[in-house]
Amino acid sequence: MRYINPFFKKNNKINLRDILKILNIRNLKFKNIKVNDIKDLDQASKYDITFLNSVKYIDIANKTKSHIIITNNKCKSLIKNKCTLVVVDNVFLAVAKVAKLFYPESLDDTYDDKVEIVDKKKFKKIKLGKNVLIGKNVKIGKNCFIGHNSIIESNVKIGNNCIIGSNVIIKKTIIEDNVNILDGSIIGKKGFGFFPGKNVNIRYPHIGMVIIKKNVEIGCNNTIDRGSMSNTVIGENTFLDNQVHIAHNVKIGKNCIIAGQVGIAGSSILGDKVIIGGQAGISGHIKIGDNVQIGGGSGVIKNIYDNSKVMGYPAKDIKSFIKDNKNG
Amino acid sequence: MRYINPFFKKNNKINLRDILKILNIRNLKFKNIKVNDIKDLDQASKYDITFLNSVKYIDIANKTKSHIIITNNKCKSLIKNKCTLVVVDNVFLAVAKVAKLFYPESLDDTYDDKVEIVDKKKFKKIKLGKNVLIGKNVKIGKNCFIGHNSIIESNVKIGNNCIIGSNVIIKKTIIEDNVNILDGSIIGKKGFGFFPGKNVNIRYPHIGMVIIKKNVEIGCNNTIDRGSMSNTVIGENTFLDNQVHIAHNVKIGKNCIIAGQVGIAGSSILGDKVIIGGQAGISGHIKIGDNVQIGGGSGVIKNIYDNSKVMGYPAKDIKSFIKDNKNG
Amino acid sequence: MRYINPFFKKNNKINLRDILKILNIRNLKFKNIKVNDIKDLDQASKYDITFLNSVKYIDIANKTKSHIIITNNKCKSLIKNKCTLVVVDNVFLAVAKVAKLFYPESLDDTYDDKVEIVDKKKFKKIKLGKNVLIGKNVKIGKNCFIGHNSIIESNVKIGNNCIIGSNVIIKKTIIEDNVNILDGSIIGKKGFGFFPGKNVNIRYPHIGMVIIKKNVEIGCNNTIDRGSMSNTVIGENTFLDNQVHIAHNVKIGKNCIIAGQVGIAGSSILGDKVIIGGQAGISGHIKIGDNVQIGGGSGVIKNIYDNSKVMGYPAKDIKSFIKDNKNG
Repeated sequence: MRYINPFFKKNNKINLRDILKILNIRNLKFKNIKVNDIKDLDQASKYDITFLNSVKYIDIANKTKSHIIITNNKCKSLIKNKCTLVVVDNVFLAVAKVAKLFYPESLDDTYDDKVEIVDKKKFKKIKLGKNVLIGKNVKIGKNCFIGHNSIIESNVKIGNNCIIGSNVIIKKTIIEDNVNILDGSIIGKKGFGFFPGKNVNIRYPHIGMVIIKKNVEIGCNNTIDRGSMSNTVIGENTFLDNQVHIAHNVKIGKNCIIAGQVGIAGSSILGDKVIIGGQAGISGHIKIGDNVQIGGGSGVIKNIYDNSKVMGYPAKDIKSFIKDNKNG
Repeated sequence: MRYINPFFKKNNKINLRDILKILNIRNLKFKNIKVNDIKDLDQASKYDITFLNSVKYIDIANKTKSHIIITNNKCKSLIKNKCTLVVVDNVFLAVAKVAKLFYPESLDDTYDDKVEIVDKKKFKKIKLGKNVLIGKNVKIGKNCFIGHNSIIESNVKIGNNCIIGSNVIIKKTIIEDNVNILDGSIIGKKGFGFFPGKNVNIRYPHIGMVIIKKNVEIGCNNTIDRGSMSNTVIGENTFLDNQVHIAHNVKIGKNCIIAGQVGIAGSSILGDKVIIGGQAGISGHIKIGDNVQIGGGSGVIKNIYDNSKVMGYPAKDIKSFIKDNKNG
Repeated sequence: MRYINPFFKKNNKINLRDILKILNIRNLKFKNIKVNDIKDLDQASKYDITFLNSVKYIDIANKTKSHIIITNNKCKSLIKNKCTLVVVDNVFLAVAKVAKLFYPESLDDTYDDKVEIVDKKKFKKIKLGKNVLIGKNVKIGKNCFIGHNSIIESNVKIGNNCIIGSNVIIKKTIIEDNVNILDGSIIGKKGFGFFPGKNVNIRYPHIGMVIIKKNVEIGCNNTIDRGSMSNTVIGENTFLDNQVHIAHNVKIGKNCIIAGQVGIAGSSILGDKVIIGGQAGISGHIKIGDNVQIGGGSGVIKNIYDNSKVMGYPAKDIKSFIKDNKNG
């Protein structure tokens, strides 16, 4: 199911001329095109602008429906697509600037000042703890529980039969049915993405959201950051233990089991039925296949094929790991 | 000291016939026995049903006072005890079903809706912060402090001279004298135990509690889960730093020192005077002896004898670790 | 900029005789000197008492302005400075006792009972969420945001243009301009320092504070402990991701980037532009140079020179790490 992102105010139909202006680009034709949005290569329609930063994604770039790609000198010659190429030195910095044009509020990440102590008459079919704060346009399904002191910010959607614990903060998130989110977890905060500057770092816009599919359980004191350009997704019937950290843009498949204190860095993608032992870490921009088992404490720094069992730091095939550590 | 568990409503004297029925077992005599409870091998009395899942615990099984053991084909021939054996394919799944018969509410883990902003007259000898929520039948000793926004759920017992920080959540827990629990910690939530299912995982009942012995200190943002069938125990004068995760059924001895971000997986047992460096991880179902020192960042995946010093991943004798890494 | 610590009530001009008395020392002349404070070797003036525990700091000891040094038999012969030496068996235990003389409240770490639901008239130029609790003498600059349920304890100072999230707890901390502290973080709690005792551990006083310099970002659910004798410092424009743990006395330089779940143990010092990958751990009392890059999951157990790239556990030069793990 595709969800419309209801969380960010968006400017429509920005003139390409205005986009090129903030990027300091002059030598480009077709300036009078209206652009509708900025999106990932595979999500962009022909009215959207998109971007390619790494040769790694060239195949996707060559299939994108978008007609305008922000890219760099390294990638430009590889793009076979008949597109307008906007060539810049720093693709992400350019994307940050363009995203701010479409989503002027996307850099704010203060608390939601629209939340109020909830009017219990408005939410008749759910059980509410003390001091629950709920924002504007929040939708909560039947038979839900929201624990004490929890904060559900504006536009969040929660399905039926969900249990939200106490001291939970949820923002920019869509939650399907039968989801449990336990005490102290913080869902939907902006990711840790920015450009280092000498005096002041420049924050990267995070206009993605968090999508939590049905039957998921999120343990205590977890942090799940929302996506920057795409969404962070926790797949159906996946369970997370306590103190897990899921960074921006991560996509986790169905029926995964993720033990305590695991950390998954930005933009990594996990298949279905992945089992990860406690304290393991997954680097950013990595792909983990289906049915993969990762031993506790492992550090995964490269892609892992379907049905593999890995362990160690760096994580390797579990048989090698056992062999190498026989005399431990 | 033995504590009675006051946290779960219990059905008494369930007929063995009803137990066998939910396990789909027909070919067993003595069906008309009344069973009082389901307990661990070493805790069960002759009126309780117990269970054996692994050959590892066969010695305890042969000494259990219980007359009825749920077990599997692998273990059954090793049981020398004159018991009624209830042989099933999946022992834990059977235990989950039986536990639910005795403790129908054991799968719920929503917030306690009995808590109220505390009546200061009721707790004269303790100092209470703002917005403290306290449940029914909570007992708090003299000279205690409970910080702002903290939640003490029903039936929790707290001894004398305890300091509870702000934003703390305590449920299903018994706390002795002179215990400090610092800000943001969550104590007594159900453990991360369940049976993976294709569409929906089946949760394991957690009818144990957390026992925190005297003079203990628990740091900030810790998570200490309650036991499933037995209790999670933190021994006298043991100190835990920040962001420590203690899983269900873990038992920690006296005078241990556990540094920041350590994780201890389910059912592991630590002796006295164990010192664990920051970010170390202990696998589940492991035994750590007395006076053991575990270096920071280590991953302990097997039992460790008394008086050992270990380090590394997997953790090994510290002398080997230093030798193997001399040229680092 | 030097900050005066406004957080602890202090006794002035304690007679050296009284200090020697609680240390059980009799054979020392000059007992009638007035001592003003107890401070680190490099911070002490000639009216302060200081201490030297390890040969490692002998150079600093030989330059201290203090005239009275608490030390042990191992260090005493190396001190060339013309000082009165107070020789004890356990330097830190002695320091703890003396610090308690000067700062009688330094061992308390209960919640601040002076905080109140904030009077919005008193803080006109800042935006306040619901249930914000603010203590006595708190100073908050212009254009700040303080999120829901957050607690700012007495005497805390916050600069201009700061964004504090929801469920944040700040105590014993000075925050400069343009700082973001995200949801659920706990700043300024006492460090994990104490002397193990057979029945009761003896807590070490923590009379330092936390100083957060301008343009810093602190992620969600972080814990940053205040210093014991010196301060914990987060340098300008340094960004911390979620679930990071910074122990007491740690000093972090400018423009550092510290990813999720990193832990830095007590008294370690980081230079400028240090980049640390997720889940890496830094041992205590270590020095990390400028421009150092530490790979995710690494365990750093010795000093690291400027401009190094290290990875592994124990962390070593990244080229060696890659070479040693080529066949992984």
